[in-house]
Amino acid sequence: MNAQTYDVIVIGAGPAGENVADRAVKGGLTAAIVERELVGGECSYWACMPTKALLRSAAARRAALSVPGVPVGDLDPAAVLRRRDEFAAHWKDDSQVGWLDSAGIALHRGAGRIVADRVVEVGDVRLTARHAVVVATGTSAFVPDIPGLRDIAPWTSREAAAASSVPGRLAIIGGGVVATEMATAFAALGSAVTLLARSGVLGSFEPFAGERVTEALREAGVTVHLGAAVTGARRDPGGEVRLTLADGTEVAADEVLVATGRTPNTEGAGLPAGQWLTVDDTMRVNDWLYAVGDVNGRALLTHQGKYQARLAGDVIVARALGKPVEDARWGRHADSGVVPQVVFTDPEVASVGLTAAAATEAGLRTRVVDYDLGAVAGASLHADGYRGHARMVVDEDRSVIVGFTLAGPDVAELLHAATIAIAGEVPLHRLWHAVPAYPTVSEVWLRLLENYPL
Amino acid sequence: MNAQTYDVIVIGAGPAGENVADRAVKGGLTAAIVERELVGGECSYWACMPTKALLRSAAARRAALSVPGVPVGDLDPAAVLRRRDEFAAHWKDDSQVGWLDSAGIALHRGAGRIVADRVVEVGDVRLTARHAVVVATGTSAFVPDIPGLRDIAPWTSREAAAASSVPGRLAIIGGGVVATEMATAFAALGSAVTLLARSGVLGSFEPFAGERVTEALREAGVTVHLGAAVTGARRDPGGEVRLTLADGTEVAADEVLVATGRTPNTEGAGLPAGQWLTVDDTMRVNDWLYAVGDVNGRALLTHQGKYQARLAGDVIVARALGKPVEDARWGRHADSGVVPQVVFTDPEVASVGLTAAAATEAGLRTRVVDYDLGAVAGASLHADGYRGHARMVVDEDRSVIVGFTLAGPDVAELLHAATIAIAGEVPLHRLWHAVPAYPTVSEVWLRLLENYPL
Repeated sequence: MNAQTYDVIVIGAGPAGENVADRAVKGGLTAAIVERELVGGECSYWACMPTKALLRSAAARRAALSVPGVPVGDLDPAAVLRRRDEFAAHWKDDSQVGWLDSAGIALHRGAGRIVADRVVEVGDVRLTARHAVVVATGTSAFVPDIPGLRDIAPWTSREAAAASSVPGRLAIIGGGVVATEMATAFAALGSAVTLLARSGVLGSFEPFAGERVTEALREAGVTVHLGAAVTGARRDPGGEVRLTLADGTEVAADEVLVATGRTPNTEGAGLPAGQWLTVDDTMRVNDWLYAVGDVNGRALLTHQGKYQARLAGDVIVARALGKPVEDARWGRHADSGVVPQVVFTDPEVASVGLTAAAATEAGLRTRVVDYDLGAVAGASLHADGYRGHARMVVDEDRSVIVGFTLAGPDVAELLHAATIAIAGEVPLHRLWHAVPAYPTVSEVWLRLLENYPL
Repeated sequence: MNAQTYDVIVIGAGPAGENVADRAVKGGLTAAIVERELVGGECSYWACMPTKALLRSAAARRAALSVPGVPVGDLDPAAVLRRRDEFAAHWKDDSQVGWLDSAGIALHRGAGRIVADRVVEVGDVRLTARHAVVVATGTSAFVPDIPGLRDIAPWTSREAAAASSVPGRLAIIGGGVVATEMATAFAALGSAVTLLARSGVLGSFEPFAGERVTEALREAGVTVHLGAAVTGARRDPGGEVRLTLADGTEVAADEVLVATGRTPNTEGAGLPAGQWLTVDDTMRVNDWLYAVGDVNGRALLTHQGKYQARLAGDVIVARALGKPVEDARWGRHADSGVVPQVVFTDPEVASVGLTAAAATEAGLRTRVVDYDLGAVAGASLHADGYRGHARMVVDEDRSVIVGFTLAGPDVAELLHAATIAIAGEVPLHRLWHAVPAYPTVSEVWLRLLENYPL
C-alpha cells in the first residue's frame, strides 16, 4: 500500500474542506484533501450555486414587473436551465481542481476511511496526518420512512438543483428552506407545484416569514397544504406519482421532491453512518480529529462551514506550531447566536441571530420592534405594492440587537448590516449615528430605532 | 399684526424642518413651521423622490436584461413620468399637511423673515419663539455666471426632476451627483445626453466610482466631455440651445441642465442671501438660533438633514427643560466622518466615511483594501457580466474601518453594513465574526477581510 504523510488530511472537498486545507497550507503546513465525488462539493453542483441560478432570472423578472414602463415577457425555462448548467460548471470540477493545485493542496480521489488514529485510507493509499484529520463530508438529504417513498425514486435537493427539465406537476414534501426555494423556482419555471408541509413553513424563522412566503407561494399558484402528513407513495405504470396524505387526500404529481431534512455523511469518512460529529468551539472532536461544515450539525450553511473552516485551519496551525489559539481572533465565535441566513424565496427572507421566541427561551429580557417594510420610502420606490416586514429583537439588559429578520422582495443584501450590528455588539445609542442613506430600503433601520425609544 | 408664541419656530418644512418640529413636539414643546412653497420640501417634489422614480424602472429593466430567460422590451418613458408624478404627489402637499396636523405642528404658509431675536414674521403674522428658531430652508441650484446661460432659462435639478417630457437632446453642465443621476435617467428615457464636466465625474468619491460611471454612461450612449468649460450659451429663435466650450466646440441641445452646485436659501429666512449658516455640533448658530439640513452646509443630504434635525430637536428640548444634553446619545455625531451617500447612477455608487485620499489627508495611518465585486459569487449570480469594485479604508492605529465605497449594479443596500461598522467602530478582528450569507454580494466583506491579514 502506498503510504504518504501530511500535516493535515481533510476528508471532503466542499467549501468547508477546501477552506480548512487552504488555511493550513497558508499557515505553513502540508495538506491533502480526499474527495469521493466532485471537488467543490454540494454547494457548487447541487445546492447554493445551481439553486440560486434557478431562482435569479425569475426574481429579476418579478422586480421588472413591479415597476411600470418595462415590458416583460414570459420566463424562458430553457434559458434558465442553461444558465444553471454554467453555474454548476456542467458538473465538472476542473476549475476547482486547478484551484487546489494553485493553493498547494494535494488531492486524493476516492472515499476516505479513518482506519486508525490520524490514519485515512483512500483506495490503496494510506495517508497519515502529523497533526490533524478534518472531516468535512457534509450531509445528504434525509428521506423519511414513508411506505413506497423510496420506490418512486423521489427527487432530493440534488435532483431538483440539477433537473434537466421542468416537471408538469411537482409535489414537494417539506416546508423548510429547500422546499420553499424549490417551490418558488419551479412555480416560476412553469410547474404546477404542491407543497406538503407537515409542521409549518420556514418554522425556524420568525413566524411572519413563513406567513409571507406561504401567501406569496399561493399567489404564484402553488397549492400549499399545511399540516400535511404524507403516509404513502406509489408510481403508476404510466409514470404518474400518487401521494397519500393522512387525511385520505391523494396528490398526483410527475415528480416528488423530498426536502425533510439532512443526515450527516459520516460514513463518507468511514465513521458510523448518520451520527453528527460533536465538536468543541475549536471544531475539535478529539485531540487529532476535527469536523467542520454541515457534518458537525452546528449550522448547516455554506458560509458557516467556511467560517468554521477558517477557524479550525488557524487553530490547527497554532496547535501544530505550539502557539496559543488566538482568543481575540476566534474567542467568541459566530456559529451560535450570530448565524445569518438568506432564503431566496419570493419574498426573500433574511435573518440573523435569535428569533423573538428563541431569545425569550434563552432567558433574555427582550423587546421586539416590528416595522412594515412597505412603509419605507425606499421600498415603495423599489417596487410598486412592495410588501415586507422587519423585526429587531433587542436584549434590554445589554442594549444590543440579538436578532433581526427581514421578509420582502430583494432584502438579501440588507442582512449584513444586522450581522455586523449583532457580531459587533454595537449599542443601540450608537446605532442612531449609523444613518441609512435616503431613499434606500435600509431606512427601515431608522424606523425600527424610532420605534424603540431609548 | 396677529401675534403668536410657540416654544419652537421652524422655517422650512422639508424633511429636516419637519423632523426638528416633530422632535420638539414629542419632547413636550409647542412648535410652528413656516413654509413658502410646498410642505415636504425639495426632497419630496424636486429631488430624492421624483429623481429616484425617474431612475428605478430603467434600473429594474437593466437588472432583468442582465440575466437570460427574461424577454424585456423598450422602456416606456410616459409610464415612468406618470410614476414619477405619483411619487411627487402631483406637486400637492395635502398628505404632508395632514401629517403636520397629526403631529401637532402648526403650519404658517408664507416666507418667514427673522426680524429680531426669536421673532419671525410671516405675512402679517408675528411669531415669537420661547426657546428656539430653527432655519431649515435648504438650498437652491447655483447657476454660474456664464454669458447667456440665465437667458436660455436652463433646467436646474428642479426642472429635470419635474420634467413633463423627455428632451430629444439634453446637455448637462456638471459632473456631480445630480449631473450623473440625471444623465443616467434621461439617457434611459431616450434623450441624447451630453455631459459637460469641468473637473471630473463624481470627484468627491473614490476615483474608481467616477471612472466606472463615466464608462457606463458612455456605453449607454452619453457623450461625456471631461475638462469641459462652458463659456457661453444662446438659444436660437427655433428653440435650439448652443453651448460654447472654452476650446471652441459648440454643443447643440434642446434643453440644458445646470448642475454645478447649490447655494443656501438663507434669504428664505430673511437672512443675507447665499451665506451658509455656521453651526456648532448641536446645530446652534447662537443661543436661540439653530440651522439644520442643507442650509448649514455640513452634508447636503436628506438623511443627514433628518439626522441633524433629530439631534437639534432633542437638544432644544433638553435645553428648554434645563436638562443636560445627552452625550451618550448625541455625543459623537455622524455628519463628519460617517456620512453615507448613494448615487443612483448605473452602476450605483455607495460610499460612507472617508475616501483613501481624505483619510491620508486627515493624518490617519491607513491601509486600503480593494476587491473586484464581479469576482464575488453572489454578484455573478445577480447579473451576467457583473462589473463592480469595492474599497475599504482601514485606520491602522485603531484597527477600524473609516471609509467604504462600492460601485456596481444594485449596491445601494450593501452600504448600511459599512455605515454600522464605521459608526459602531467595530474592530476588524470582530468583523471576522460577522459572516456574510452565501451567496450574496455582501460576501465581498469576507474577501476584503481576507485581503487584510490581521
